[in-house]
Amino acid sequence: MEKYSVVFLPDDIKVEVDAGISLLEAARQAGIHVKSTCGGKGTCGKCTVKVTEGKISGGQGNIPKDLKEQGYILACNAMVESDLSVEIPMEFRLHEHQVFLDDQQEGIVSEGKLDILGDFPLNALAKKISLELPPPTLTENASDYARLITELKKHMATERLTVSNAVLKTLPDILRAGDWKITVTIADLEEGQEIVRVTSGQDDAPAYGVAIDVGTTTIAVTLIDLSSGAVVARQGTYNRQADFGDDVITRIVYADENNGTEKLQQVVMETINDLLNKIFEEQDISMEEIPVAVVAGNTTMSQLFLGISPKYIRLEPYIPAASQYPIVKAKDLGLSINPEGMVLSFPAVASYVGGDIVSGTLVAEVAKHEELTLFVDIGTNGEMVLGNQDWLMCCACSAGPAFEGGGIAYGMRAMAGAIERVAIDKETYHVAYKTIGDTPPVGICGSGLIDCLSKLREAGIIDRSGKMQDLDIPGIKRGDDGPEFILAFAAESGIDQDIVITESDIKNLIRAKGAIFAGVRIMLSMADMPIEAIDKILIAGGFGNYLNVPDSVRIGLLPDLPAEKYEFIGNSSLKGAQLALLSKEAFRYAEEIGRSMTYLELSIGNAFMDEYVSALFLPHTDFSLFPSVQI
Amino acid sequence: MEKYSVVFLPDDIKVEVDAGISLLEAARQAGIHVKSTCGGKGTCGKCTVKVTEGKISGGQGNIPKDLKEQGYILACNAMVESDLSVEIPMEFRLHEHQVFLDDQQEGIVSEGKLDILGDFPLNALAKKISLELPPPTLTENASDYARLITELKKHMATERLTVSNAVLKTLPDILRAGDWKITVTIADLEEGQEIVRVTSGQDDAPAYGVAIDVGTTTIAVTLIDLSSGAVVARQGTYNRQADFGDDVITRIVYADENNGTEKLQQVVMETINDLLNKIFEEQDISMEEIPVAVVAGNTTMSQLFLGISPKYIRLEPYIPAASQYPIVKAKDLGLSINPEGMVLSFPAVASYVGGDIVSGTLVAEVAKHEELTLFVDIGTNGEMVLGNQDWLMCCACSAGPAFEGGGIAYGMRAMAGAIERVAIDKETYHVAYKTIGDTPPVGICGSGLIDCLSKLREAGIIDRSGKMQDLDIPGIKRGDDGPEFILAFAAESGIDQDIVITESDIKNLIRAKGAIFAGVRIMLSMADMPIEAIDKILIAGGFGNYLNVPDSVRIGLLPDLPAEKYEFIGNSSLKGAQLALLSKEAFRYAEEIGRSMTYLELSIGNAFMDEYVSALFLPHTDFSLFPSVQI
Repeated sequence: MEKYSVVFLPDDIKVEVDAGISLLEAARQAGIHVKSTCGGKGTCGKCTVKVTEGKISGGQGNIPKDLKEQGYILACNAMVESDLSVEIPMEFRLHEHQVFLDDQQEGIVSEGKLDILGDFPLNALAKKISLELPPPTLTENASDYARLITELKKHMATERLTVSNAVLKTLPDILRAGDWKITVTIADLEEGQEIVRVTSGQDDAPAYGVAIDVGTTTIAVTLIDLSSGAVVARQGTYNRQADFGDDVITRIVYADENNGTEKLQQVVMETINDLLNKIFEEQDISMEEIPVAVVAGNTTMSQLFLGISPKYIRLEPYIPAASQYPIVKAKDLGLSINPEGMVLSFPAVASYVGGDIVSGTLVAEVAKHEELTLFVDIGTNGEMVLGNQDWLMCCACSAGPAFEGGGIAYGMRAMAGAIERVAIDKETYHVAYKTIGDTPPVGICGSGLIDCLSKLREAGIIDRSGKMQDLDIPGIKRGDDGPEFILAFAAESGIDQDIVITESDIKNLIRAKGAIFAGVRIMLSMADMPIEAIDKILIAGGFGNYLNVPDSVRIGLLPDLPAEKYEFIGNSSLKGAQLALLSKEAFRYAEEIGRSMTYLELSIGNAFMDEYVSALFLPHTDFSLFPSVQI
Repeated sequence: MEKYSVVFLPDDIKVEVDAGISLLEAARQAGIHVKSTCGGKGTCGKCTVKVTEGKISGGQGNIPKDLKEQGYILACNAMVESDLSVEIPMEFRLHEHQVFLDDQQEGIVSEGKLDILGDFPLNALAKKISLELPPPTLTENASDYARLITELKKHMATERLTVSNAVLKTLPDILRAGDWKITVTIADLEEGQEIVRVTSGQDDAPAYGVAIDVGTTTIAVTLIDLSSGAVVARQGTYNRQADFGDDVITRIVYADENNGTEKLQQVVMETINDLLNKIFEEQDISMEEIPVAVVAGNTTMSQLFLGISPKYIRLEPYIPAASQYPIVKAKDLGLSINPEGMVLSFPAVASYVGGDIVSGTLVAEVAKHEELTLFVDIGTNGEMVLGNQDWLMCCACSAGPAFEGGGIAYGMRAMAGAIERVAIDKETYHVAYKTIGDTPPVGICGSGLIDCLSKLREAGIIDRSGKMQDLDIPGIKRGDDGPEFILAFAAESGIDQDIVITESDIKNLIRAKGAIFAGVRIMLSMADMPIEAIDKILIAGGFGNYLNVPDSVRIGLLPDLPAEKYEFIGNSSLKGAQLALLSKEAFRYAEEIGRSMTYLELSIGNAFMDEYVSALFLPHTDFSLFPSVQI
């Protein structure tokens, strides 16, 4: 097959590629990740690039007018026909930034520090034990493995202990090299114990475990010291599957239509392994030192992580392959921990309520107390759980990724440069904002968008349906698709462009908040309870560092209840995975949670749609639901 | 690297090989397996070949004089220096004959048919169950796997059921392809159940299991119908590891000195897989239909099968890596059954009493009855067990492979053409013999050797120490290394050579029988019991089809007890593996046997050596031990 060389600018990275592949694929091969919300269908208009030298075919499609005039084309359907030079502006790329994981900033309800263990005992999924064995003689001639077990039994219960053949192979030499002094690393699971590693000599390093949150958009990993429970290191980044589409549906379509399950598994594993390798390098430890990993993700992410086709998740009646996943050896997945290490996945409840929600429900102790708790995880989907120690119900609504910055012109995840708070002067319409890291603004994240919507309404810039008013003020300009409100002018922004919120953004946000509030209403009506019955509201998700409760209520996203009932708990999926690593009992309890939760399928009947339509106003068509809001 | 072509005759097989490799290795690459008792050290003189064209270097060593004169050289240390033509006489090859597995022939104590199950319940290690699942709906939306389990629970206990990720991956499509009718194959082990395979539709084929006896010299495989217990097919052949040496010690040395564990594992797996593939072809079934295999072998064979270095087995204090082996997935071994299938190995007792003996002890019910049983397995080593339902002891003595035909000039395994019975006229010294399959004789097997030794002594051709008498009869001739007795003259033999037994053969046989009898004596003295206390003697091993008890007693191989106390049970290792496949309880009981047997290490102290030296006479220095034998 003919090969061409493609040079990507401004990086000046050159790759040799097969003739006829798309520029999107060529960029991928060059290690440059271009935004592509639609998964390469030519519809989202995000993957714009400019060919400065050479010949391509195709490249037309839904491209913003101003970019088209500047000569931009779409990378997803432009095919390489000669050697090329291609410019990809930094703003059209997925950046491999650190996801913001630092907990320190003030806020209205800042991220609460969950006491991870709660009343679960510290009984980690792996242990390290140093042993000194009596050397064998002609009369004391038990086998190497039997000798090891005899000594090990003095330190722990071994009634269901196994060893993998791979580890047994190493045992005879290791025992003798260390003069019968060894350190044994054991995965200690509910299902039994397995010796994952034996090393010569005795060392004091703790047993480690890895917690992994596989989000549709971002992936976060922490390294946990299993003896103390301390978080030793953390890393996060974008899920590189985003190259194949922004949301789970696009990914499922890609997996199904392109036989792409394996590809998507490989890509998510690469993303995770890069994070793990960064941690191992930083901590100067080897992957062999990690005997166990716990993974939480939504059902599609969990299936793709395990390489199980998610096809039937999007086909009625929406059935996942499994709700409890097998324990898999790292070597069978290609995960960069000890090849014999055990990888556990949080169980799912249904196709759209996955292990991430079970993990969150676990660590937030929703099922541990008498008080009625509403747990809401706002990510690409909105999933929620209502219940207490006696009962649990859950549902999922397609909120869309608006609160994660998706489908919003200048939307972005909560990271440095994101506008996270907004104030608008009601007289002058002057905008004040705060960005994460206090750097020049490059976009706006979830908490900023909630503020923004609330403040635009309060200042009368938009009406109750979200329509922008015809005001003659410098902040309002006309964009390609209608009026836009300028949050930060080009001069002050970090990207030499005005950062705006468009009327279409506002509609998207209203749809997203409407879907979530409708879900809350449906659950309450199933339980036959009023809003006031809720004792506690826990909000998880990637908003940033805090949740602005009054503004969330003012736009009708969250129930009109006093701020003290709210708690923002951040990435509860990751925290639950950490808890599970530290306590066998916690992981078993999570399986119970998964089994006992009642799932409400919102697509049955009209109830959800009625609630949703009623919620497409600010704050709602039924004002009585929001008594504290000044209409 | 330079390449030369080597043509092997009379096969006319041509291979391209690297310059400088040995002719033994070149033959191996051509698929021709040449005898090599010493494992390629140039000492055994078995790998003789003749170069008819081209240039080699080396090739000298311990070559029988007559062959040397005919131009034969050693293949193991002759190096390829040009294109070559090489003749390898058929008699110097390891033939890939079928090992004789047919039970039907008359004999003095012919092979007994053990009632395999005995009083163990039929509770096989794998099951096949056909199910019809209710299709999912929006309201009955349990996951595919949960739906499967719900239905499966109606048919079996599933308290510790797992599924491998590989099988789970196939589940969603298989369920829908079969319109929710499926057949599930489950490995049902003591440790828990695992779903090994799910297929669309419902089929009536039974679940199969494979029993494998990995002997040092031969390998036998049977396919078992796990629902009826029937032996569906059987195959046997030489263990191709014989290319690397005849006995376990030579193999261990090869494994250790050449980093050869992996190579030996690969070779044994190839040998077994070829047998399995023959069976699958013959039975028209696929490897995927086999969810479980049980393997029995001596400790070295078991470790090599699992790829565990046997190095420390031959180094004092002779410690095996393990006595109970892990259950391994077929895919991790490269065994040709279902890749997710479970491979169980019989536990070992010590470095020289392995899983084959535990398997034999199990199926022969040594530990099930009140009567005192002596179990003797005469193979390359002589291993024996003494005991009853209350106690068991065992030991191993290096008998050498004489009774398997090793170290004997014309020795061979019990297969077509092997002399299996010998009679010598005391007046005329005329020899009558019977061969297996009644074909012209090509060698002599274990039962023939016992006969021969006994009859030579009876006829006065050898004295009590095994020395050949100076008789002027046509049957005695002078060979390179001393006198030889002709059993079959060249004219009548199948190999155009006299088939003889040499004085050195006789010494080897006396050493072998002396070692075994010494082992029996040691065990009896440990138990403080006389020979007469033995109620039953079970003989296992590769003698052929029967055991000649009077002759075995006359040469002092076996205790002087009435023939009715003897039973010849053939390949009890294979039969025990078949039993284990059919009964979980039996395999668990085998583990108990392994744990409870007391192993006598004969290398401690002088007791064994004293007994051994006393037994180097026909029948023994202490005549009182053999009252029935006419001295």
